[in-house]
Amino acid sequence: MELALSLARTVAGQTSPNPPVGAVVVKNGQVIGMGAHLKAGEAHAEQIALQMAGDEARDADLYVTLEPCAHTGKTPPCADAVIAYGIKQVWIAAQDPNPLVAGKGIQRMQDAMIQVDVGLCRQEAAQLYAPFFHYIQTKQPYVTMKIAMTLDGKIATATGDSKWITSNEARLDVHLLRATHDAILVGVQTILHDDPLLTTRLPQGGKNPIRVILDTHLQTPTNSQVIQNDEAPTFIFCGQQASSKRQQQLEQGSHVKVVRLATEKISVSEVLKALAKHNIMTLLVEGGATIHATFLSAKAMQKVIVYVAPKLLGGKSSLSSITGENPLTMSEAYPFTFEKVEMIGPDIKMTALPKGSESNVYRDH
Amino acid sequence: MELALSLARTVAGQTSPNPPVGAVVVKNGQVIGMGAHLKAGEAHAEQIALQMAGDEARDADLYVTLEPCAHTGKTPPCADAVIAYGIKQVWIAAQDPNPLVAGKGIQRMQDAMIQVDVGLCRQEAAQLYAPFFHYIQTKQPYVTMKIAMTLDGKIATATGDSKWITSNEARLDVHLLRATHDAILVGVQTILHDDPLLTTRLPQGGKNPIRVILDTHLQTPTNSQVIQNDEAPTFIFCGQQASSKRQQQLEQGSHVKVVRLATEKISVSEVLKALAKHNIMTLLVEGGATIHATFLSAKAMQKVIVYVAPKLLGGKSSLSSITGENPLTMSEAYPFTFEKVEMIGPDIKMTALPKGSESNVYRDH
Amino acid sequence: MELALSLARTVAGQTSPNPPVGAVVVKNGQVIGMGAHLKAGEAHAEQIALQMAGDEARDADLYVTLEPCAHTGKTPPCADAVIAYGIKQVWIAAQDPNPLVAGKGIQRMQDAMIQVDVGLCRQEAAQLYAPFFHYIQTKQPYVTMKIAMTLDGKIATATGDSKWITSNEARLDVHLLRATHDAILVGVQTILHDDPLLTTRLPQGGKNPIRVILDTHLQTPTNSQVIQNDEAPTFIFCGQQASSKRQQQLEQGSHVKVVRLATEKISVSEVLKALAKHNIMTLLVEGGATIHATFLSAKAMQKVIVYVAPKLLGGKSSLSSITGENPLTMSEAYPFTFEKVEMIGPDIKMTALPKGSESNVYRDH
Amino acid sequence: MELALSLARTVAGQTSPNPPVGAVVVKNGQVIGMGAHLKAGEAHAEQIALQMAGDEARDADLYVTLEPCAHTGKTPPCADAVIAYGIKQVWIAAQDPNPLVAGKGIQRMQDAMIQVDVGLCRQEAAQLYAPFFHYIQTKQPYVTMKIAMTLDGKIATATGDSKWITSNEARLDVHLLRATHDAILVGVQTILHDDPLLTTRLPQGGKNPIRVILDTHLQTPTNSQVIQNDEAPTFIFCGQQASSKRQQQLEQGSHVKVVRLATEKISVSEVLKALAKHNIMTLLVEGGATIHATFLSAKAMQKVIVYVAPKLLGGKSSLSSITGENPLTMSEAYPFTFEKVEMIGPDIKMTALPKGSESNVYRDH
Ligand SMILES: [Zn+2]
Ligand SMILES: [Zn+2]
Ligand SMILES: [Zn+2]
Ligand SMILES: [Zn+2]
Repeated sequence: MELALSLARTVAGQTSPNPPVGAVVVKNGQVIGMGAHLKAGEAHAEQIALQMAGDEARDADLYVTLEPCAHTGKTPPCADAVIAYGIKQVWIAAQDPNPLVAGKGIQRMQDAMIQVDVGLCRQEAAQLYAPFFHYIQTKQPYVTMKIAMTLDGKIATATGDSKWITSNEARLDVHLLRATHDAILVGVQTILHDDPLLTTRLPQGGKNPIRVILDTHLQTPTNSQVIQNDEAPTFIFCGQQASSKRQQQLEQGSHVKVVRLATEKISVSEVLKALAKHNIMTLLVEGGATIHATFLSAKAMQKVIVYVAPKLLGGKSSLSSITGENPLTMSEAYPFTFEKVEMIGPDIKMTALPKGSESNVYRDH
Repeated sequence: MELALSLARTVAGQTSPNPPVGAVVVKNGQVIGMGAHLKAGEAHAEQIALQMAGDEARDADLYVTLEPCAHTGKTPPCADAVIAYGIKQVWIAAQDPNPLVAGKGIQRMQDAMIQVDVGLCRQEAAQLYAPFFHYIQTKQPYVTMKIAMTLDGKIATATGDSKWITSNEARLDVHLLRATHDAILVGVQTILHDDPLLTTRLPQGGKNPIRVILDTHLQTPTNSQVIQNDEAPTFIFCGQQASSKRQQQLEQGSHVKVVRLATEKISVSEVLKALAKHNIMTLLVEGGATIHATFLSAKAMQKVIVYVAPKLLGGKSSLSSITGENPLTMSEAYPFTFEKVEMIGPDIKMTALPKGSESNVYRDH
Repeated sequence: MELALSLARTVAGQTSPNPPVGAVVVKNGQVIGMGAHLKAGEAHAEQIALQMAGDEARDADLYVTLEPCAHTGKTPPCADAVIAYGIKQVWIAAQDPNPLVAGKGIQRMQDAMIQVDVGLCRQEAAQLYAPFFHYIQTKQPYVTMKIAMTLDGKIATATGDSKWITSNEARLDVHLLRATHDAILVGVQTILHDDPLLTTRLPQGGKNPIRVILDTHLQTPTNSQVIQNDEAPTFIFCGQQASSKRQQQLEQGSHVKVVRLATEKISVSEVLKALAKHNIMTLLVEGGATIHATFLSAKAMQKVIVYVAPKLLGGKSSLSSITGENPLTMSEAYPFTFEKVEMIGPDIKMTALPKGSESNVYRDH
Repeated sequence: MELALSLARTVAGQTSPNPPVGAVVVKNGQVIGMGAHLKAGEAHAEQIALQMAGDEARDADLYVTLEPCAHTGKTPPCADAVIAYGIKQVWIAAQDPNPLVAGKGIQRMQDAMIQVDVGLCRQEAAQLYAPFFHYIQTKQPYVTMKIAMTLDGKIATATGDSKWITSNEARLDVHLLRATHDAILVGVQTILHDDPLLTTRLPQGGKNPIRVILDTHLQTPTNSQVIQNDEAPTFIFCGQQASSKRQQQLEQGSHVKVVRLATEKISVSEVLKALAKHNIMTLLVEGGATIHATFLSAKAMQKVIVYVAPKLLGGKSSLSSITGENPLTMSEAYPFTFEKVEMIGPDIKMTALPKGSESNVYRDH
């Protein structure tokens, strides 16, 4: 199962909206087949592993990180393949919460007299599948909010300068985040102020996330980088009343798509639902402060990552990471739990999860 | 030397303006005397250890964390006692930067044909003596700035509510900081807003630091806790022009002392010089944001400790930890280096030192 | 490369006499193919990974744990496949010492203008390939000697009782050793005294090693378990003069093979050469004391694993782990270096390598 | 209590037959007195700490590693001093098992309305006081058996050569063991074969243990080092029938003392009882193999320390660490539990305690 999980982890982030899955076929203590699901639409992990094992798969054990599917999607059901190849025992790390699968795969294999064990390496699987389970259960992407600030909690000077708060190492880490997320979201103010490219720039290369811009009045300039550069799709969400002419101008780039909501203001939950429909399973929210405030007031984040640079900026009007409506008392703050704290070069990286969400990935099952 | 250092560490914070010192006399592999300097004015560590060893000290080894003194203060010079007792070899962790000692103790013992070795456990000693060395070299206290903030960098709501940002555990840790500092400093705004007691409240008890208030116009209310409660001295610094009548009112409590500066505004360096003259070797600055800004613009801190609570507050007008004049670019931030990051209960505690100060305690020697 | 190594590690012990190899094809930060060499005669890791990547392999990077082959064996040369698929850059952990490959694979790819980098994760690869490199360079198996003894260095009572020195956990660990070695070797005295089965008995199953018995005079009883049980091949080495009739009796079991040496006595090096010719790359020597002595006097072991049980046996005639000729002085002992020390249940497991062999896997290259 | 324990640990081994004790007086979070019991006959730790605190001890807390004494020995009872100085609360790590104290100290202080808490840092205290508790409860020394052997369990060649099995570092560690034990025991065969000095030879010096030789027939040569060298006392135990003339010759050195037992053979328990009467609390048994066997058959050891050198010696007649009568089955071995395993230079050091004795220091209380 260790190998199956390590196979799955390696493809995490490239299979959306499918979950990352790894499978290993073992017979008499020897590996005779292995596979990972590389990309939505391509062969499932189990299929690859079984095919590699071939005839030898008869009476072998199959280790798979997620319950094999029982429905026919772009590929035939894996549960049937497991049966056809004559597997004797199946070890599953996590059951599939997808209602299309949800125990049906297990049932079908058990009906064929295959022994099925669920729960090996449960905890590692829970961490691996947190985004996928959230996506299946809420029909919204798993949202990670990213903040980079100074030791005194500033994200920019009063004039908006934020180059560079954190170290080169921390910025590389952010690009790694981008590469492993399906989409990245910013507000139009960030576009207007910084004109960012919003692509993944890693020495070893890396997939670009879809660019998502919240822009009620379609103020995104046509000469901005997210419009001019077509390395990744750009989705722009606007309010009902935004100019149609402006929309046409923006959509001249074939990689640009304007999504007009049915309301005047942009609602976070409508945006998330729309993104989920576009198969976006993981979303990285990179600011600015107003966007963060909107997500905070909707409690619409499943993880917060804060990079702290060891420097004091000060400044009465320097910018803070989240603005929005003023809470009256400290007790109104949204509570989290730290999951991890690491050094990234000279900076500290803190990862936090909403309180109560840490260990209950399985609560609803 | 391990024991000597552990003796010295135990008394750190209770010997100001003297440094914490531990001494152990060893003969033939056996401890025959040990001592720590408990309090300014009382016997030095070496004296206690030598006296305990008595006649057996002849030809023994002395391990001492700091160079023995060579001048007559409130006690006779330790270097002379080392010679008188017939010690054969002296092991010293750190040389004394105090110009009154500064190698003279070592010289005197060497002149008496005692073998002297300096540098055993140098690094542990450097950390232990950082405040003392700073105090001797700059004639100012070693300043630690303390900040408690949310994950999004807020220290209070717009209405000033900050109860409670951090956990019980982190607040106990702050009281431990108070117990090991000679003085604690806040601005008058903190007095007016929170009316804090500023004492050490630990289950096991603990020394109260001297309370220091920066109060240009002597606005501290006579019915505030720092005036009404006399568990610790209260020093109030004011500008040249502050009302004398007000000063008299405040000083009716015999524990209160108003220090009138020669300038209209309060200068951080004047305050620090005055505190050093009152034998204050270590100062904990606890805010508010304006006070922090003043210390930041004077670059007058040797350490910053930030507690981060895992919660997001948000709020356009929520308070930030340091205000003051607005820097134009991020490059104007004052650079630090993280020394340590720890979990304190559910919170994260980050300790940072000004960049370049980390490892050069010995630079000037 | 991490994944490639973890793929290779998983198949270590099942590919002899081929080395365990893992390969991963990466394009634009995404895994598009992966594979491991499962078994001698089957497809090489690179072939599987490239085939999985298909057309997308063009301009991708290939990470492979060992230099791709350049000669046609049971499969066509991998170096040619790398070229044919249009790989842009190849990352290799370890160069192949096999003279049939030895840089030729690298050369051929470089000639095709592919960028080749050798040495990523060099150390992990060195450890993984120690047996293979030894086998290729010496044409002898990599020998691990296993000893289980009490805290006072006894392996059995005077009557030969050794059940059970070590704990259940340690004995499982030995079965894991068996499963990952190609062959296991004991002396005929062990057969006569204990009549062991010498198979792998693990809850999860596991490959049986070939059983090798050193038996100069063919004293192995025909009703012993290694003859009666045919779960694994049994090789019996005997001297030139051993009875032919006896040989016929023993070889009636089709899994038994008697190897008659050209000398009267059994020479360790002849045995090792013969085993290497049978594609045995790794050999576990399990005693008894005389066999260990023979291997020690030939310095024919590359690793020693000693399990120590926390018990004192005592006994003037209790048995020691290695007997043989008596050295005169302690300085004649064969020097090792401890590589690892672990707790296995209540016992201690010590792993040692011959002094000088620890870190020079690459010395001859 | 941390400091009190670290004070006590530093004097462990120099206070026999008294236990090592550390004491710290704390008032208002500040250390105002500290002390350790340096040597039998000298002031107790509590006395030193209380005297240092002086008048300030009133209403202070006392932390002490062992229950203060209630009987008048060479010094007045500490419990009375605690009362006299006006201590408010006493924190005790371990209760004294000595029947002369045994709760009486606690009782007397409680009668004087002092609050007493027992059990802070109980575990550290249990480890520190294991030898003392054993000594008080059994009226025998705490015995540690030391073995140095090769990886194949040999302690010497057939000719008796054992120079040097282990590394310089391990031998230094043995000298540290000697310095912290009251006595060291070997058999006369070791004297005859190796003529050892049996003193502590550490760069930093160290107390010599009393030398104890088991010599039934008084064969120790008068020109052997343990007789000629008078740096430490030498006790020679002999049987009833040993030559009186020989005894006189040996006892000419004033540091030599012959102890004649009432039986022909030497009984381990008689030796241990006699040593205990000479205030020997800790005994290190250094061999040879016959002596170890005698102690093993009497199960008369509380700890076994084995150094393993990474070398294989082999040899049919090479010597093993423990000889003696031959057990028939492995199940007769005396079971231990590993307490610790460490690297000492290139060697491994294993420490084991008799099974069941590990954590029950408090069982009899
Ligand atoms: Zn499937
Ligand atoms: Zn002094
Ligand atoms: Zn190949
Ligand atoms: Zn006492």
